Amino acid sequence: MRNLKGRLDLCSINTATLGHREPLSLTIDRIARAGFGGIAPWRHEVEKAVVAQIAKQIKALDLIVTGYCRSTYLPAATRSQWVANVNENKAALRDAATLGARCFVMVVGGLPEGSRDLSGAREQVSEGLAELLETARDCGVPLALEPLHPMYAADRSVLNTLAQALDICDALDRERSGFLGVAVDVYHCWWDPALRSSIAAAGEAGRIFAYHACDWLHQTRDMLLDRGMMGDGVVDLPAMRESVERAGYEGLVEVEIFSKENWWRRDPGEVLRTCANRLQTVV
Amino acid sequence: MRNLKGRLDLCSINTATLGHREPLSLTIDRIARAGFGGIAPWRHEVEKAVVAQIAKQIKALDLIVTGYCRSTYLPAATRSQWVANVNENKAALRDAATLGARCFVMVVGGLPEGSRDLSGAREQVSEGLAELLETARDCGVPLALEPLHPMYAADRSVLNTLAQALDICDALDRERSGFLGVAVDVYHCWWDPALRSSIAAAGEAGRIFAYHACDWLHQTRDMLLDRGMMGDGVVDLPAMRESVERAGYEGLVEVEIFSKENWWRRDPGEVLRTCANRLQTVV
Repeated sequence: MRNLKGRLDLCSINTATLGHREPLSLTIDRIARAGFGGIAPWRHEVEKAVVAQIAKQIKALDLIVTGYCRSTYLPAATRSQWVANVNENKAALRDAATLGARCFVMVVGGLPEGSRDLSGAREQVSEGLAELLETARDCGVPLALEPLHPMYAADRSVLNTLAQALDICDALDRERSGFLGVAVDVYHCWWDPALRSSIAAAGEAGRIFAYHACDWLHQTRDMLLDRGMMGDGVVDLPAMRESVERAGYEGLVEVEIFSKENWWRRDPGEVLRTCANRLQTVV
Repeated sequence: MRNLKGRLDLCSINTATLGHREPLSLTIDRIARAGFGGIAPWRHEVEKAVVAQIAKQIKALDLIVTGYCRSTYLPAATRSQWVANVNENKAALRDAATLGARCFVMVVGGLPEGSRDLSGAREQVSEGLAELLETARDCGVPLALEPLHPMYAADRSVLNTLAQALDICDALDRERSGFLGVAVDVYHCWWDPALRSSIAAAGEAGRIFAYHACDWLHQTRDMLLDRGMMGDGVVDLPAMRESVERAGYEGLVEVEIFSKENWWRRDPGEVLRTCANRLQTVV
């Protein structure tokens, strides 16, 4: 396993970690100044600005864009809405290319309003991904399927395990083109009894495009916005990173923490210093 | 699939559904009077009373005890605590036998305080189950492993999928003695991409000992106490029950709803009438 001591160049900050409280250009500067090697910005902040200008700023600071967050949800109650969702993702993929992103993060979406058809929603996802894979190749930006924790199956993602994501990858991309893979996120996957074997299989297929770190707090008070800083929770982070790296992952370790009542209330500089410290000691 | 219309004798009420607001003897009477065929009481209410007396009351009312809730958590920080946990479960199994319970529900427990050793906790569970299986045979009460939703992996159950539970069953009980199996709970399992195949495998091995119904609310506000009444959420309940019955399950359908802000505030009679209505129409 790589030693992250003195290697913040191997570490990236997902801008959500700072709570989206400042303009993106300021956040980019902060992250670069703090010595991190990468950044993962969100569409709502990038699309508010001029994409080419953001790309230029990031490039000038030598930051790697470890992922572009994130897809428009795919499943829809009507076919025309589904088509619109796919098309929004195609546009976002072009922005991801402008940003030079290592991957476009696919959070696939939950059940359409009023639906109880989980397998139907999963089919809509696969069908959408098949279309997007074409665009991804054209743009040169890989799709990273991010399985979300099962507690989000209803409202955010019907894709819930690495094994499920890999099944989709194998079905749509038998030739292992390098444009369809997964983002492994500590928060979503740490509990999975099949974690080790799924990570190994993902690596074997060359499909690990991103690794997201945070922690699971023993007493989680909010299903969405109470993620822990690395070291404050129950996840064996070194063991998990070791699996991912043993499986061949050589990309950056990206910190992504949603924490409304704690880290989002703290000074962004303090948050970045804490991330830097924890990355070098407990991850 | 069985038609539940007019067949409340095929339906059971887990007493947690009523919020444990009344003495158990009153709850037993209510459930029997409402026409249900079964009941699943909790240890904390049974142990407050005289077990033999409760058993007598239940028997006199011709109620089937669809499950006795539930095990003491197994994983522990020290060996002596682990032994104590196992022994508490042995005592509870004897009470389950007195009650004539169809199974003893195993909610296996989360990580010990301060621990990050998930696989170690899982080993403690397997080891404990091996011991308890002996007692279960002696008492004539099967152990029903209940995989809990992955959002409880830290604090309530390191057993999180049916596939994982079945692996344990196969390892500890190759001969399929009938004393080690699973409780399939809608709330915990509905999201699982491997649900259908796991249910089929469980049925094939004769290991489905209980089926628990409720619903997953699209906007869940509390990780523990915001379960939905059947029909109010996003789960395709008929499809799930059909899988379970096609796999050979012939036991009762047990309603188990934790709902602090909604159903636990309503009159117990209203809750039971609603359960009866929904069981016969949407489950």
